[in-house]
Amino acid sequence: MEQKVAVFRKEHFNAAHRLFHAAWSDEKNKQVFGACANPNYHGHNYELVVQVNGIPDPITGFVINTKTLSEIVDQEVKSKFDHKNLNLDTQEFKDLNPTAENIAIVIYNLIRPRISNHLDLKIRLYETERNFVDYPA
Amino acid sequence: MEQKVAVFRKEHFNAAHRLFHAAWSDEKNKQVFGACANPNYHGHNYELVVQVNGIPDPITGFVINTKTLSEIVDQEVKSKFDHKNLNLDTQEFKDLNPTAENIAIVIYNLIRPRISNHLDLKIRLYETERNFVDYPA
Amino acid sequence: MEQKVAVFRKEHFNAAHRLFHAAWSDEKNKQVFGACANPNYHGHNYELVVQVNGIPDPITGFVINTKTLSEIVDQEVKSKFDHKNLNLDTQEFKDLNPTAENIAIVIYNLIRPRISNHLDLKIRLYETERNFVDYPA
Amino acid sequence: MEQKVAVFRKEHFNAAHRLFHAAWSDEKNKQVFGACANPNYHGHNYELVVQVNGIPDPITGFVINTKTLSEIVDQEVKSKFDHKNLNLDTQEFKDLNPTAENIAIVIYNLIRPRISNHLDLKIRLYETERNFVDYPA
Amino acid sequence: MEQKVAVFRKEHFNAAHRLFHAAWSDEKNKQVFGACANPNYHGHNYELVVQVNGIPDPITGFVINTKTLSEIVDQEVKSKFDHKNLNLDTQEFKDLNPTAENIAIVIYNLIRPRISNHLDLKIRLYETERNFVDYPA
Amino acid sequence: MEQKVAVFRKEHFNAAHRLFHAAWSDEKNKQVFGACANPNYHGHNYELVVQVNGIPDPITGFVINTKTLSEIVDQEVKSKFDHKNLNLDTQEFKDLNPTAENIAIVIYNLIRPRISNHLDLKIRLYETERNFVDYPA
Repeated sequence: MEQKVAVFRKEHFNAAHRLFHAAWSDEKNKQVFGACANPNYHGHNYELVVQVNGIPDPITGFVINTKTLSEIVDQEVKSKFDHKNLNLDTQEFKDLNPTAENIAIVIYNLIRPRISNHLDLKIRLYETERNFVDYPA
Repeated sequence: MEQKVAVFRKEHFNAAHRLFHAAWSDEKNKQVFGACANPNYHGHNYELVVQVNGIPDPITGFVINTKTLSEIVDQEVKSKFDHKNLNLDTQEFKDLNPTAENIAIVIYNLIRPRISNHLDLKIRLYETERNFVDYPA
Repeated sequence: MEQKVAVFRKEHFNAAHRLFHAAWSDEKNKQVFGACANPNYHGHNYELVVQVNGIPDPITGFVINTKTLSEIVDQEVKSKFDHKNLNLDTQEFKDLNPTAENIAIVIYNLIRPRISNHLDLKIRLYETERNFVDYPA
Repeated sequence: MEQKVAVFRKEHFNAAHRLFHAAWSDEKNKQVFGACANPNYHGHNYELVVQVNGIPDPITGFVINTKTLSEIVDQEVKSKFDHKNLNLDTQEFKDLNPTAENIAIVIYNLIRPRISNHLDLKIRLYETERNFVDYPA
Repeated sequence: MEQKVAVFRKEHFNAAHRLFHAAWSDEKNKQVFGACANPNYHGHNYELVVQVNGIPDPITGFVINTKTLSEIVDQEVKSKFDHKNLNLDTQEFKDLNPTAENIAIVIYNLIRPRISNHLDLKIRLYETERNFVDYPA
Repeated sequence: MEQKVAVFRKEHFNAAHRLFHAAWSDEKNKQVFGACANPNYHGHNYELVVQVNGIPDPITGFVINTKTLSEIVDQEVKSKFDHKNLNLDTQEFKDLNPTAENIAIVIYNLIRPRISNHLDLKIRLYETERNFVDYPA
């Protein structure tokens, strides 16, 4: 039985965000989210790694062309989030706290429809070099 | 069904160590462990990545606050190992060879009690940029 | 004649910012600054490298203790800029465009009074991994 | 029950290659493989991470000595591919397109016989910092 | 007196090359250039850092817009060298050995006419992570 | 007039060390050197970058062959310091505090006699990713 290969494409985008829960007081938000609750926002250089698993095509040797994968990320993710304020400029985070966890889930859901059903998808998102997430785990 | 998100926090500590088996001759130790058996120790900048998997909290959007995770590493790992001689200054490696494999297992066991039962834990430890381990695999 | 040694300490901070010139139209700002002019801000993980040149102390072997250097950066830079909106939350960039060039000059001027006169100071600031500046050149 | 530890060793090699399908026209090859189809070849600094999973030996604390692992990579991979033209200088890619996917599978098959049966093997290959693959996924 | 700021922009390109001196025997070439003399070429992921020094514009805060700098590199360097065989596909290295030193000098000469006279230019070229050059020194 | 090119070669070594001044009390040493004064040593993965400046040879295109440079570092530096305790196992640091500053000066003096007089030499030493030095500055 053939085994799948995982193909990874790394992209990046820069964005501002703020972590807070609208129903909480400023004090409570600061207590839970610390400096990330700053009402005027802060920001990150997000590094995004998109992983697609499948059997390589016997002719091309590709699971998926990384150029295609890069274009999908441009269209579905970077056009929406790059050089944006995630809280103010996007539909996705109007009522959803833009934690790394939630951003990764949102990106997964944006890209999933663009990837063939027989391929698996996984997202890694670096908020900083020291804080990052995978979805699904 | 909701899928888990993996949250990663990267920390580092510097330590001296020596690889050897007390019951072996110097020659045998040098043969098996090479320069790592040097009786006067050598050392590393250890990079530690702690991974915690779970379902994000619907309010905060966090699986676990990386600030909390960082504090747990400070208290359970860095306070014990940072700027220390692993062979001489720690209980954990008094009779256990401080290979990357064993250090990762020890760190897992130190951190595991501090993480909620419904969350999974995994440790990655870089001894150098080119030699590293995961536990559990 | 003894030659100087350069000591470098790397720190980081996360901030939101926007590039624009208040006297220009939105169109003109977008033309010059591109996506960086987004009125709702975007952000970066800034990596800051502070360089201090001098003759090492004959007893300690230090030009400057990097712990001291790190504390100076905490007090003069990170307390002001980390997890902040550079345009809205700081005095320094109220009327100064927060380009990497200007942020590096501002940081130089904040740190310079804290470094002894016989030591040289230089700032490197990474806005992203691919865009960075040195001051003075 | 004991759990396995994964041990990773990172190596690198430099090689030229060209992506194309012999039965296709130049035009078709350029359309599918883009600049990678350039008839005169281009090249990469390949970063190779070999992962071996197993239970650490109770005496040595090693799953596998990374020095041994490095020697296996030297003998089975670097001696064949380092500073070579993958299309012209190797048996393996005479009739197989040297995509990252296929190179990873070939490397897996070269190393697998050298690793004990009770140990698992996995290959990560970076073609560039932004394009990489795992095999098996 | 105002001091200059250095602005850096990092780009990359992939290329095949071979080091050899046409007037020498294969043996002599192998002796001097080692595996780099392989007649069928090998290749690298070249990382290019272009540095421009000058006084920031008082309105924009830019020494040079890094977007402009990136476009100059695209037009003068990447269009010529990316995914190419430096020995076979370029005018510049037809009779010039494509060492990192010579590639850096060639890139400097390609970019210099595109940069204003009052600005200084410097090139850093990484052939690998461990071998790199600056021009001028 | 021809301008010099700088050639860089990156190497690494692992070592244990301790910072202290023999004439001082433990308390005083701890106050000045912090955790680095730990009597049982700690350690680092040192990254060493050796820079040599000169005019490239018109035939080879080399300022210096990086293979030669690597061999010099092996013979003069790594054979002495790699997998060693700098305080106990070396002549150089018997009475000299092994700060990054002093290690860089010592390495410069070890390598300088091996480099032709018409070439300039400069040393960069990373003690950690965040603490590093240049000599001469």
